[in-house]
Amino acid sequence: MRATVFRGPFDVRVEQVPDAALQEPTDALVRITHAAICGSDLWPYRGLEPYQPGWRLGHEWMGIVEDVGSQVSTIKRGDRVIAPFAFSDGTCEFCRKGLYTNCLHGGFWAQENDGGQAEAIRAPLADGTLVVVPKSVEGDEARLKAILPLTDVMGTGHYAAVSAGVHAGGTVAIVGDGAVGLCGVLAARRLGAERIILLGHQAQRLELARRFGATDLVTSRGEQAEREVIELTGGGAESVLECVGTQPSMETAIAIARPGGSVGYVGVPHGGQLNLKRPFFDHLTLRGGSAPVRAFLPELLADVLAGRLDPSAVLDLTVDLDGVPSGYAAMDQRTALKVMVRP
Amino acid sequence: MRATVFRGPFDVRVEQVPDAALQEPTDALVRITHAAICGSDLWPYRGLEPYQPGWRLGHEWMGIVEDVGSQVSTIKRGDRVIAPFAFSDGTCEFCRKGLYTNCLHGGFWAQENDGGQAEAIRAPLADGTLVVVPKSVEGDEARLKAILPLTDVMGTGHYAAVSAGVHAGGTVAIVGDGAVGLCGVLAARRLGAERIILLGHQAQRLELARRFGATDLVTSRGEQAEREVIELTGGGAESVLECVGTQPSMETAIAIARPGGSVGYVGVPHGGQLNLKRPFFDHLTLRGGSAPVRAFLPELLADVLAGRLDPSAVLDLTVDLDGVPSGYAAMDQRTALKVMVRP
Repeated sequence: MRATVFRGPFDVRVEQVPDAALQEPTDALVRITHAAICGSDLWPYRGLEPYQPGWRLGHEWMGIVEDVGSQVSTIKRGDRVIAPFAFSDGTCEFCRKGLYTNCLHGGFWAQENDGGQAEAIRAPLADGTLVVVPKSVEGDEARLKAILPLTDVMGTGHYAAVSAGVHAGGTVAIVGDGAVGLCGVLAARRLGAERIILLGHQAQRLELARRFGATDLVTSRGEQAEREVIELTGGGAESVLECVGTQPSMETAIAIARPGGSVGYVGVPHGGQLNLKRPFFDHLTLRGGSAPVRAFLPELLADVLAGRLDPSAVLDLTVDLDGVPSGYAAMDQRTALKVMVRP
Repeated sequence: MRATVFRGPFDVRVEQVPDAALQEPTDALVRITHAAICGSDLWPYRGLEPYQPGWRLGHEWMGIVEDVGSQVSTIKRGDRVIAPFAFSDGTCEFCRKGLYTNCLHGGFWAQENDGGQAEAIRAPLADGTLVVVPKSVEGDEARLKAILPLTDVMGTGHYAAVSAGVHAGGTVAIVGDGAVGLCGVLAARRLGAERIILLGHQAQRLELARRFGATDLVTSRGEQAEREVIELTGGGAESVLECVGTQPSMETAIAIARPGGSVGYVGVPHGGQLNLKRPFFDHLTLRGGSAPVRAFLPELLADVLAGRLDPSAVLDLTVDLDGVPSGYAAMDQRTALKVMVRP
């Protein structure tokens, strides 16, 4: 079969690889119908994160089950399934607490495992990981496109919002106009926030933020942006979503939080160190991490199926499998916000 | 009157200063009967924190009201009052949320304000700040000594425990065997924790921790201590109290927290920067700050008065006002854990 393989910075290729196959009795074998390229795929793509040549790519995918191992009980051949960006057994101490990304037996797609930007994938721990999508969506490409972001960015935006304590009537500021930040706007609106301020720079993304429910847009940078949010909110936002993962973005998130407020941070921290003085004296709660998307998939899927939630607009470019390298380039050069892959 | 004045590192003096006096209609004038030296007083004492020569010292005190301004309504002459380590109006947005140390009009004792290691003190915002202690305790020196730590260390230990999500039946690890850490043990026990692990080094303090309710003592340092806590708890403590404020202590606190757990940090961060990768991937909640002691004073006072709480043993040396400089030296040299001052 064909799959996306990392060969080096700025060099991802679609190559012939051994067919995905069941290995464990808890595995499922899934033919991928939809996948996506994630902003976090750009870290290895740009050589900013250690990644081995030969490792697979892609952790956002859904597809049709072709086969299951003998111990799989909740998933069957022919099911359409969606996967969170990490697999998990669903039964360990941490999974039972909803912390699926701390699963004692879990792991992440791609790297040494099969990746999602491929024709098919071996999915370990299928019962604990995969969520069945009802047959009713087959052929409804618009709905399928709205479901795909639940693999990662929509669940991550939601987790940022939950981590930041977003509540009905609250004031929220979101740092970052990438797909996660934009999904954070949707999540904040879904949780009833009254005021949603997005900090970003790119016209198209800002327009999308407005469509998604942002009430205010702050387009300046650095301390000027911080001052504007402080002024807009009369002293800072109760809930701040950090959706980038750089030191300056985290510092901005902390600077614009209201004393006693919370910063939900979901951008994987890349470099940089945090001085705790400001969080200390402002009594901020810092909470976040690699989103346990599996915990939110059922409720978010229900909302998409009911037409109450639609993050599909973050996917502004579609490619086939051969187009994956050009999809990476488009996201790297910011000519695309997020790429959908149809193998 | 006489008051403690900072003259430079390792040089605090008891000097003649202008008598404390009412200045604002919301002030109270209080004759100090009991004060204490705080571990945080050692930062300026040791020259590790900017402090101006001439600034007063002491933020832990109680006493008898000698006079009140015309707008003070809840405090009257002759009342015994206890003060939290910060003053606050009790009415602003943040005070109403219990965030008294973020009061929009508040401040801290000492520095340019009157200090508590003195004969008397001007107390701004008396209605919002001071808590009346019932007359029944007069003459009961043991009870008064048990009340004094509520000004800071007991309230701070309690806030650390609350920030770390300590709950009945939970597992708690406490980094630091200073007065705050030891009060953290009391607070954790009071909140029903089942297992309370203290990380510390000094025999006398460890003995006190055991008396206060610690179930386990870890006396090694650094990574060895971390390994021991991880082993004792089968993977980390749900709640960790960071009661020191240095970079290594915060790193230890984060290292021994269980995935999904919380670190309550109340040691004022001194230097050092935090790498967020571990908190991110372990889904830790970091919460803390300068404890809003005023919020907890009534409930903790009620417990001391009822005999359910007694932190007095952290005060292991008593001096008069002239003895304050020797009290600082004793705490600096660790021959005393915490010093009570009887002006």
